[in-house]
Amino acid sequence: MSKGKISRRALLAGTAAAVSAASAKILPAQESGTKDPTKVQGGPAKEVGERSRFEKPKRTYFSPTRQASNTPLQDLEGIITPADLHFERHHAGIPEIDPESYSLLIHGMVERPRMFTLADLKRFPAEAVTRFLECSGNGFRTYRNPEANKEETPQQVEGLTSTSEWIGVPLKTLFKEVGVLPEAKWFLAEAMDAAVMTRSIPVEKGWDDAMIAYGQNGEAIRPEQGYPARLFLPGFEGSSNVKWIRRIELADKPFMTREETSKYTDPLPGGKARQFSFVMDVKSIITYPAYPVTLTEKGFREIKGIAWSGRGKIVRVDISTDGGESWNKATLQEPVISKCHTRFRFAWDFNGAQATLMSRATDETGQTQPTHVELKKLRGPGTSYHYNHIRAWTVRQDGSIVFGENA
Amino acid sequence: MSKGKISRRALLAGTAAAVSAASAKILPAQESGTKDPTKVQGGPAKEVGERSRFEKPKRTYFSPTRQASNTPLQDLEGIITPADLHFERHHAGIPEIDPESYSLLIHGMVERPRMFTLADLKRFPAEAVTRFLECSGNGFRTYRNPEANKEETPQQVEGLTSTSEWIGVPLKTLFKEVGVLPEAKWFLAEAMDAAVMTRSIPVEKGWDDAMIAYGQNGEAIRPEQGYPARLFLPGFEGSSNVKWIRRIELADKPFMTREETSKYTDPLPGGKARQFSFVMDVKSIITYPAYPVTLTEKGFREIKGIAWSGRGKIVRVDISTDGGESWNKATLQEPVISKCHTRFRFAWDFNGAQATLMSRATDETGQTQPTHVELKKLRGPGTSYHYNHIRAWTVRQDGSIVFGENA
Repeated sequence: MSKGKISRRALLAGTAAAVSAASAKILPAQESGTKDPTKVQGGPAKEVGERSRFEKPKRTYFSPTRQASNTPLQDLEGIITPADLHFERHHAGIPEIDPESYSLLIHGMVERPRMFTLADLKRFPAEAVTRFLECSGNGFRTYRNPEANKEETPQQVEGLTSTSEWIGVPLKTLFKEVGVLPEAKWFLAEAMDAAVMTRSIPVEKGWDDAMIAYGQNGEAIRPEQGYPARLFLPGFEGSSNVKWIRRIELADKPFMTREETSKYTDPLPGGKARQFSFVMDVKSIITYPAYPVTLTEKGFREIKGIAWSGRGKIVRVDISTDGGESWNKATLQEPVISKCHTRFRFAWDFNGAQATLMSRATDETGQTQPTHVELKKLRGPGTSYHYNHIRAWTVRQDGSIVFGENA
Repeated sequence: MSKGKISRRALLAGTAAAVSAASAKILPAQESGTKDPTKVQGGPAKEVGERSRFEKPKRTYFSPTRQASNTPLQDLEGIITPADLHFERHHAGIPEIDPESYSLLIHGMVERPRMFTLADLKRFPAEAVTRFLECSGNGFRTYRNPEANKEETPQQVEGLTSTSEWIGVPLKTLFKEVGVLPEAKWFLAEAMDAAVMTRSIPVEKGWDDAMIAYGQNGEAIRPEQGYPARLFLPGFEGSSNVKWIRRIELADKPFMTREETSKYTDPLPGGKARQFSFVMDVKSIITYPAYPVTLTEKGFREIKGIAWSGRGKIVRVDISTDGGESWNKATLQEPVISKCHTRFRFAWDFNGAQATLMSRATDETGQTQPTHVELKKLRGPGTSYHYNHIRAWTVRQDGSIVFGENA
């Protein structure tokens, strides 16, 4: 990113020295393998556009079974994640569903059980919200074994989180439609994939901001995100946002499915476990500078990253460059939206000494990120979900960067 | 969209009758050509996702030279336009530009002329805004000759408008960097395409909300949108948002380029013309029901569409179903963002009589859309840009729909 040396004051104030003309090394067009674009007729319009051949963002897999893929956080700008780069997690692959054969049944403790086609769902007043979605297992390898996973990118460390504009019908509209009974305290959400994924959700979430989403970033939801319709629960762990949803059953207690008993509970020290830990806690990660970037020169550059919380808006991100000894407030980039990725930046001088960069986010409920040691003490080494501890990157004297344990 | 008959009250209130179980005709999976998805292993995660094979949104061309393509407005939900479906307009094709060879020169009436590489631009504090962009020629065929263009979709009538999250550096940051002199009143923006597109912009816009954008919907801007960087002027006509920008020159008067003298001026009756008519006026279009939809049954359905204004927020959209005799207020869908597509909806009973559907938007400055007759009187039949008159769709007794002249 940084080619010339610039001063901290210049970087902060945007004054003359911040970007010197000397830093602008313009390659002649022939050296880059492209012709002078003002001398050649350009390409025609296309039915569906493509990325520049110089941009190749890709999701990555951490397992050969390819039941998950991670968003390239370090390649993105702004807050929207392009739909084709949104992280994936599925338990029996991505089903192919003909929208004409799709239906959603809502039954159980309701006055009027009903089946809704996709066209039915689209006839109700829609809403559109920009929100993050995160897998509760995001960050498991660096929690479990940071020493063995030092050469990991932000995408590999934390790429099971993405942000979209989600479009659909509020679940409360459907609840009114079927007449949910006051005795109903929970609902079951069931998928039509080969795993028949099922989760129990408190009915309050249905009356609050839950949505049956059929749109994502302006178009139909993508197959790996639940085409043609999914449950979307802003701020709740990814697995509870049941994709390819075909059935909702209202009841007076949770259903104790496999995915909330055997899986998606958090083991605690002493053989206990916490269950129904839906809300994704406040979290952040520095996406630049980070592995595999090497800082080839001393001088100022901007530390950049994203922060998010399932409880509401991010109100503050603090940055440490000395491994947590001292902290300073980062700048938050507008727009700051509730339950949505929020960008932050902080000017930092790399003086050639080893440095440990950390980000610590705080949300509007006052929650803040614990250290790795604090979280491990609370949850034990065997926990499988909800790793929201402070992440660190170690910048070595030679400018190379690795994921750093936050001890 | 609508299969069963429903009452207006039910549609508005979301009560029991709005969507009847009887309307849910679920096709057995085998009839749709797909297998029961709960019985087959689904597909694996992919590096870059693809749309469902049941969804094939495409841009369309209105000219065989393919120097423009239109967004499929009738296929979209929410406010974001997927980047690969954003409308296109270029004057000498889409150039291929190596980001390593890219530079932006800012000079003329400045204290410190400078060249910025793409990396330089990305080091400044970024901003992200969700805004529409519209070609000033959008709607020209139906303005000029509505009778000859009755069988046109919303995409064909009005598809040269799209909305993105735009990410970049505020131009005022660069203006401070180079020290724009107080005598500077205009700036020239010059592209590095084969047309070397040039436009003069009032310097006030540079100090206001202009941006050098390098990101779109979370990722690098697409080639047809100006990769690797473009000028973005919220609310201004598309052609002034110079793509592939390579040079900005500050001066005390406009440069009178071809694209603001021979083109992009608005002829008026009496042989005069108005020039530098940058701001896109308040506008709207109904995207459902519209050609080629046929309403096969009487009954209630929702009229839906989008409204936008280059002057600020949409505050009101009125709907007429009787060709402008009477008007009623539509519901605006949140979020309502300044200089951004805003969705509206209105419940309507198709009783089998011919009907003429119209939408009329009003923005926060109090501007509203004129009728076709009013606009033609003001501008004459030969005008080439800024067609913001009220659009109409005629629903015939047989339920077929055509673009309707608003006389």
